[in-house]
Amino acid sequence: MSGQAKSRPNGMENIVIIGIGLIGGSFAKDIRRLRPKTQVLGIDANLEHLNEAEQLGIIDGTTTYQDLSKADMVIVSIPVDALVQELPKILDAVDDDCVVIDAGSTKALACKVVENHSKRRNFLACHPIAGTEFSGPSAALEGLYDGKTNIICEVEKTAFKLQERALELFQQLGMRIRYMNPEAHDKHIAYVSHLSHISSFMLGKTVIEKEKNERDIFDMAGSGFESTVRLAKSSPAMWTPIFEQNKENVVETLEEYILNLTEFKQLLLNDEFEKVYQEMDNTNRIKEILKGIPVGNEK
Amino acid sequence: MSGQAKSRPNGMENIVIIGIGLIGGSFAKDIRRLRPKTQVLGIDANLEHLNEAEQLGIIDGTTTYQDLSKADMVIVSIPVDALVQELPKILDAVDDDCVVIDAGSTKALACKVVENHSKRRNFLACHPIAGTEFSGPSAALEGLYDGKTNIICEVEKTAFKLQERALELFQQLGMRIRYMNPEAHDKHIAYVSHLSHISSFMLGKTVIEKEKNERDIFDMAGSGFESTVRLAKSSPAMWTPIFEQNKENVVETLEEYILNLTEFKQLLLNDEFEKVYQEMDNTNRIKEILKGIPVGNEK
Repeated sequence: MSGQAKSRPNGMENIVIIGIGLIGGSFAKDIRRLRPKTQVLGIDANLEHLNEAEQLGIIDGTTTYQDLSKADMVIVSIPVDALVQELPKILDAVDDDCVVIDAGSTKALACKVVENHSKRRNFLACHPIAGTEFSGPSAALEGLYDGKTNIICEVEKTAFKLQERALELFQQLGMRIRYMNPEAHDKHIAYVSHLSHISSFMLGKTVIEKEKNERDIFDMAGSGFESTVRLAKSSPAMWTPIFEQNKENVVETLEEYILNLTEFKQLLLNDEFEKVYQEMDNTNRIKEILKGIPVGNEK
Repeated sequence: MSGQAKSRPNGMENIVIIGIGLIGGSFAKDIRRLRPKTQVLGIDANLEHLNEAEQLGIIDGTTTYQDLSKADMVIVSIPVDALVQELPKILDAVDDDCVVIDAGSTKALACKVVENHSKRRNFLACHPIAGTEFSGPSAALEGLYDGKTNIICEVEKTAFKLQERALELFQQLGMRIRYMNPEAHDKHIAYVSHLSHISSFMLGKTVIEKEKNERDIFDMAGSGFESTVRLAKSSPAMWTPIFEQNKENVVETLEEYILNLTEFKQLLLNDEFEKVYQEMDNTNRIKEILKGIPVGNEK
């Protein structure tokens, strides 16, 4: 692979994954599978996760920020509150020829905190639209990124040869690339991802509250309910800082969602069932829209 | 099979399916597979569906209300508005030894409209918790009912030997049975099914409205969004009368859902992110609850 040859003539590149959970672990698994000569090392604030990743053979070993200067590529896959704290330190620690890629679900603040960093050109802001509702290294999946979208922000701020190194990996993983500015990313992802998570969490809450004394009732639930509340299994540690960083956009989507629900409720109360039908019929268009979404899991 | 032997000593029983869509078609497919001697005939107000079902080999042929007296079993799988109109006529038309089973997603009104019917004992009120977001005979699935829950209401009002005939079929299909009164069914199903559908339809609406001028944005959606809006593909013709018949319960669930969403929004606006975390953490319990739900599709 020319991607490996670029940094180390013998293909012995070093990739460090910071945050070796579902996202980082899945990167590690595929890199080890696709690039057998590459050394994949892990860093994680959670030592249990780090040990687990090593025991599962997801990483070749562990490393520290002190040794980051040996890395050709660093993939940072940690909650976005930790990301904005760690990113400047990581850039401080890496070599001039190293590309640092993040995987955060919000992009504006991450780009902001490094905008004046002397190694801004070493950073590529990414959001791979992939994942599941599970977390930790044991949730890592081989092939997770195959066919998935990777949104890259402010690509023009990254050194060209480092962009190229990152893109070679994404291509090898089978990802399709979309370029977007961080503000547009955060605005739109609030609709197609963050709102889904809140609607699911609050659906779960509503049903649990109502049915707390009626355990058998969940016997009545089928996979329609399961599908709609699946995201309510997601990690609060991951999602709280996402909602915090993207608060303004998320609140806007929530207001529109609540308004639509309230109007629907009013149609029911007014016995306007033709309009109820029409609302659902109009929304059936989602069938066509969803055809464009790659099958698989997502965060 | 003793189930076949009961009505016709040679096993040549006659089963009529009224409404040969996803639900009726899936019953027909499994009955034909599991009981090769049984004749399965279809009735459908939609002649295209009826022809399609015959061409697909889902039914052996078609029949009419005039000939319902020859049936040993009638399965009525039509939208619940049609159900409450047709059920008394169907009971009028069948023989004293025929069991009429419905598959409606609401149960109180169906039970009410036949409570004083002279053939009330021929009717078994059922809600098989199975289906997909698709409809019509081409959406029918073999094995759809395997492992799924079938809720039976007012079982005590059905003649014992006719209950037995129906239960033999459900057992053969692999269904597990739960008994419930119609009011409890309608109340709880509003939480675990009807609310999910509205949350999904309104999520679809909110995103489509916002993103109507930005077609590319759906490139950003992953399977989390897909999972949450899957039910927004469902048939308005099926769901409008469900919401109409179960209006009171559905409005109550919607009010609680809207309240929870509004409180969550307020936590965001107040920067109470510890509480945001707590809300999600509490709802993570849904993981344990969902473990009890049979895998598959549902209506």
